[in-house]
Amino acid sequence: MITLTSDFGLKDSYVAQMKGTILTINPKATMVDITHDVEKFNVRMGAFILASTASFFPKGTVHLAVVDPSVGTERRAIVIQTKKALFVGPDNGVLMLAAEKMSIEHTYQLTNPKFRLQKISNTFHGRDIFAPAAAYLDNGVEPSEVGPEIEEAVEPKFVTVKYKDDIIKGEILHIDGFGNLITNITMQAASIKEICVNLQNQTLTLPFCKTYGQMQAKQSIALVGSHGFLEIAINQGNAAHKFQVKVGDTVEVGFRT
Amino acid sequence: MITLTSDFGLKDSYVAQMKGTILTINPKATMVDITHDVEKFNVRMGAFILASTASFFPKGTVHLAVVDPSVGTERRAIVIQTKKALFVGPDNGVLMLAAEKMSIEHTYQLTNPKFRLQKISNTFHGRDIFAPAAAYLDNGVEPSEVGPEIEEAVEPKFVTVKYKDDIIKGEILHIDGFGNLITNITMQAASIKEICVNLQNQTLTLPFCKTYGQMQAKQSIALVGSHGFLEIAINQGNAAHKFQVKVGDTVEVGFRT
Amino acid sequence: MITLTSDFGLKDSYVAQMKGTILTINPKATMVDITHDVEKFNVRMGAFILASTASFFPKGTVHLAVVDPSVGTERRAIVIQTKKALFVGPDNGVLMLAAEKMSIEHTYQLTNPKFRLQKISNTFHGRDIFAPAAAYLDNGVEPSEVGPEIEEAVEPKFVTVKYKDDIIKGEILHIDGFGNLITNITMQAASIKEICVNLQNQTLTLPFCKTYGQMQAKQSIALVGSHGFLEIAINQGNAAHKFQVKVGDTVEVGFRT
Repeated sequence: MITLTSDFGLKDSYVAQMKGTILTINPKATMVDITHDVEKFNVRMGAFILASTASFFPKGTVHLAVVDPSVGTERRAIVIQTKKALFVGPDNGVLMLAAEKMSIEHTYQLTNPKFRLQKISNTFHGRDIFAPAAAYLDNGVEPSEVGPEIEEAVEPKFVTVKYKDDIIKGEILHIDGFGNLITNITMQAASIKEICVNLQNQTLTLPFCKTYGQMQAKQSIALVGSHGFLEIAINQGNAAHKFQVKVGDTVEVGFRT
Repeated sequence: MITLTSDFGLKDSYVAQMKGTILTINPKATMVDITHDVEKFNVRMGAFILASTASFFPKGTVHLAVVDPSVGTERRAIVIQTKKALFVGPDNGVLMLAAEKMSIEHTYQLTNPKFRLQKISNTFHGRDIFAPAAAYLDNGVEPSEVGPEIEEAVEPKFVTVKYKDDIIKGEILHIDGFGNLITNITMQAASIKEICVNLQNQTLTLPFCKTYGQMQAKQSIALVGSHGFLEIAINQGNAAHKFQVKVGDTVEVGFRT
Repeated sequence: MITLTSDFGLKDSYVAQMKGTILTINPKATMVDITHDVEKFNVRMGAFILASTASFFPKGTVHLAVVDPSVGTERRAIVIQTKKALFVGPDNGVLMLAAEKMSIEHTYQLTNPKFRLQKISNTFHGRDIFAPAAAYLDNGVEPSEVGPEIEEAVEPKFVTVKYKDDIIKGEILHIDGFGNLITNITMQAASIKEICVNLQNQTLTLPFCKTYGQMQAKQSIALVGSHGFLEIAINQGNAAHKFQVKVGDTVEVGFRT
């Protein structure tokens, strides 16, 4: 089984070119799109999306992720072997957040010309290098055959959560299609009733809920969402539009039990 | 075979999280997306889309539909067994329009913890409850095993067509991606030449055609579309933009033979 | 294996109606979307997308493409048999660019009622005629069974590249989701250092690169892209937004070695 994640969009045929390449090598491959609407060139968003999703796939899945602004330059192509899955893509951090959650065993540089198309473009390694590698790995090729083992791969850049007195300082990690603000803050929901949030010079006091529909429609709330992180949301509304924030903005949180 | 319908969009990984969950339980599942671009929280649109499509799938298909603004509240999770297919989703009407077209045999409340993930979030039952149930049902689990039979499920709200003198009064049920206005009015096209339409204070006299390309480009027309309903359209144009109407608007129609 | 290309979008259920129809006839069909976001009614864009992609799929693939503004009129339905693949769709040029690249052997008019749905709408032959034909062909039906052989199919309209003195005159063939301007000009990159481009009254001198990331971010460049054509691009930026051009605009190019 192969998953595909990219910033290629679905309007062009780039994704289909990768799929055709995979099916030419491995006609029985099961392929599942994670998303192809990662913001263009946004490696961090690709890393977050992949890390949110990979663990729901069966053991042995090959995860192919291509958000690759430096395609054709010196940046390396890599295969990461973890306990549960394989990851294939550029060495720019897009794979690492997901791979680290599954315990990395080995990382290989993808250099063996046996596992790529014969004719390589300079601008589309997704199709010419990464897709063939994923197809061969899904077919049973050993990761160690793709090239030399390497020690370290590039890490994606995320802000570390800081705790000071009773305040937690983190960031907005992702804004989903519903406009929910997903932070990088994990918390025990136990006895919390309200949270105070400082968000781009706006101070909000929000009821701490179990789910969106617990409050009336259009009410702003805080909750632990399905990603396992603190979320700021509006029941049947769009928090990103209302609060005019963006990914990477700082979030400061205090609690009232 | 499992179909998936939701308002999750394709930018996030919510759909892929559901698919990974299904494939973990049932690695050979064939999955087909109906759409994931139902307008957020719009149960009625989800119901229309599913009902337009389910009948084209083979006997035995499991239709999973998640438009679920009340996730995590008291609303029930259900499985509907019909002559031709199974339906899995929240008990808010999203399944019923499609299920009723196939003759409902039994409706069960989805309560058996055997057929869900071990850890259930409060905000994403699509992944934690509905997707696993669909995977097990597609694997051959009997619908009666998922929980107790229930008598009645929630119906979606649609306007009933009214006939008065020679005027038919209905509503705009759906506006498709081409901007075609799909009403809830069925009609025998036999000998009709023109129709008069009252649409948000605009009175239109439209030729009644067999297909879009029968008139010249940019000409407004009426026809019976592929959904089997009266449609107002513009050949190679966008009727929704031109007439500035929206789903739910009233449509009054008269005929000239 | 069946690929699907259309202008139906993914918000509606038209694509799923085609897939359900295919799976009802041929439950084991492997289906891959090329794209469903061809600009509405834009046959030329459909032809370009299909021709960019079909060659990456295995021998024997059935390519179904439906961009069909004249559905239900006198335009013919056709099946094209080439050395490598079959093509199914309307006879309006959408199939021809791709088919010609694979050497056309026979073209048949799709008239045999055995290979369509029993009830045919006037407005959705994608579902009622083309999808069933693709499913049967993928099942092994001989192309010659679908109807009479025909001599000529409609060609799509593209500008021919002209060479005069040292200037090449072509057009913008496609603008991809990254905003890269893909021209219809092929060239040997050998010793070129810079190119001069005349683009809607803007004269640009651009470094001729191997890949986007070779220059600093936001730098405008020219290169031969993965389609094999001259592309004008901005590293990590959007050339279409910057230069305000559109598909079909004229491009004049000179070189400096």
